[in-house]
Amino acid sequence: MSLFVFIDILGTVAFSISGVLIALKKRMDPFGILIIAFVTAVGGGTLRDVLIDANVAWMRNLTYVYVIFASSVVAVIFRKKLGYIRRSLFLFDTIGIALYTIVGVEKGVASGFPPLICIALGTMTACFGGVIRDILCNEIPIIFRKNIYATACILGGLTYFLLMKTSLSQNLIVILSGSVVITIRLLAVTFDWSLPSIYGKKEMEEQ
Amino acid sequence: MSLFVFIDILGTVAFSISGVLIALKKRMDPFGILIIAFVTAVGGGTLRDVLIDANVAWMRNLTYVYVIFASSVVAVIFRKKLGYIRRSLFLFDTIGIALYTIVGVEKGVASGFPPLICIALGTMTACFGGVIRDILCNEIPIIFRKNIYATACILGGLTYFLLMKTSLSQNLIVILSGSVVITIRLLAVTFDWSLPSIYGKKEMEEQ
Amino acid sequence: MSLFVFIDILGTVAFSISGVLIALKKRMDPFGILIIAFVTAVGGGTLRDVLIDANVAWMRNLTYVYVIFASSVVAVIFRKKLGYIRRSLFLFDTIGIALYTIVGVEKGVASGFPPLICIALGTMTACFGGVIRDILCNEIPIIFRKNIYATACILGGLTYFLLMKTSLSQNLIVILSGSVVITIRLLAVTFDWSLPSIYGKKEMEEQ
Repeated sequence: MSLFVFIDILGTVAFSISGVLIALKKRMDPFGILIIAFVTAVGGGTLRDVLIDANVAWMRNLTYVYVIFASSVVAVIFRKKLGYIRRSLFLFDTIGIALYTIVGVEKGVASGFPPLICIALGTMTACFGGVIRDILCNEIPIIFRKNIYATACILGGLTYFLLMKTSLSQNLIVILSGSVVITIRLLAVTFDWSLPSIYGKKEMEEQ
Repeated sequence: MSLFVFIDILGTVAFSISGVLIALKKRMDPFGILIIAFVTAVGGGTLRDVLIDANVAWMRNLTYVYVIFASSVVAVIFRKKLGYIRRSLFLFDTIGIALYTIVGVEKGVASGFPPLICIALGTMTACFGGVIRDILCNEIPIIFRKNIYATACILGGLTYFLLMKTSLSQNLIVILSGSVVITIRLLAVTFDWSLPSIYGKKEMEEQ
Repeated sequence: MSLFVFIDILGTVAFSISGVLIALKKRMDPFGILIIAFVTAVGGGTLRDVLIDANVAWMRNLTYVYVIFASSVVAVIFRKKLGYIRRSLFLFDTIGIALYTIVGVEKGVASGFPPLICIALGTMTACFGGVIRDILCNEIPIIFRKNIYATACILGGLTYFLLMKTSLSQNLIVILSGSVVITIRLLAVTFDWSLPSIYGKKEMEEQ
């Protein structure tokens, strides 16, 4: 349990920092930076909770708010050094989406939704904060163009439900399906994978 | 009832395809295309259900998800032929907004909202998926600039409430008010109607 | 109570007009203008109500809808004269955000949220309508770049909770914390305050 919380917080830290980095690039002021960090970190979970009509987590538990605030301040102060720690950030972020995916899937299961919807909820939890971040910054959401991010979440959610049919313990299922998300994302980035293009050469040139 | 379901599915197909067409124009990858198709088809109903605090329909009934997935795949494969069937697509889409409008109005009535709000809910159900689609694609929503689309829904909703004061049967009211939406939209497109411009010649030139 | 309602309506008028002004600049048609006026005026409160799972106010009380409709029509007709009354508009708007902040804070308190979240709800109520307006118009929300607006709301909310620890009457607390919002905003605009920049000279030049 304590590991779970630890990883959850690491994920929130990583998402907040990724929000700060984009807000800095857009030359936002301190308030804007904080809001972007905030929606990046909690946007996905909030949409999920609104859709399944559950209580919104960060509104009842201030830990998230404090963590986001602290990470944002630290990220702004050390923004010139962030390049050096990008690698570890990327790891936190990857662990974060793995965890957020599982949290979303499990919330869906607990509310009695069908597996397909639970996988969608998991993916939404992990990815939608980034979508809101990009909309607020007036960009086409990166996830719609570079999608192994979401694909990793979907496959992790799928693994979760496949393993549920076995007699493995709940903890093991969580760890295994989380590992699937992490592995796919690491492989995808290492080997620069992307979904097969559906556009012919000619179509790309027309662009 | 069976006709109702048939038209509902046709509407979902038409909206999905309209989403795919825009995502293709933006050169999105397969995942992005699917998401855009999805929000175009269910975005309006989802916003409505969140606002009136009802269960979100597609989360409990997977038919929508399957229909959207299948239409998107077909639309991507036959995207070069879509020009030829645009006319029939346009018909589905028009029938779709008529139906979505009535569905939205009736959901509002069932939850006890005042007529004006029910008309807004109907219009939202029919039009808001397109708005989210345009926001995600980083465009000013087309509906804010070419609005006979929404006007048709509003007038259809109005017809619904006017007819409710008569002794017509519920089914007839649904068919008549749906026909109003369809007729206005067909006439508007045929004769290229738009709302009266409020801008003077000079103002347009300044632009 | 009657003063409260009067100010609430003034706030709605001011927000609607600010929406109309931006929609006109984007050369939207009458329907688009109305929608932008609408989301500017009720967007913040709607998000708040969805997040705290309360009934959405404007859906049960049509006064808001009528006020927004009437202000929009008047604003469009007299749009060339709006420059002259900008000063009074700005006052309404400032009074409006003060009131919206307090309304949001009190709704949060009534639902038992912690003070920090209540302040966020108040700020959201006052500022988020403008954020949705800017997103729909395809702009980076102005609030993320010119933030004394939000800062005034935050400090007003903070004042509210500090005064709650005293024995002042509820009415006095509302008036005092509302005044803080108004005073800070007036001072900020008069002296052109902004949050301290976090960007070095060099960083700004790189931009």
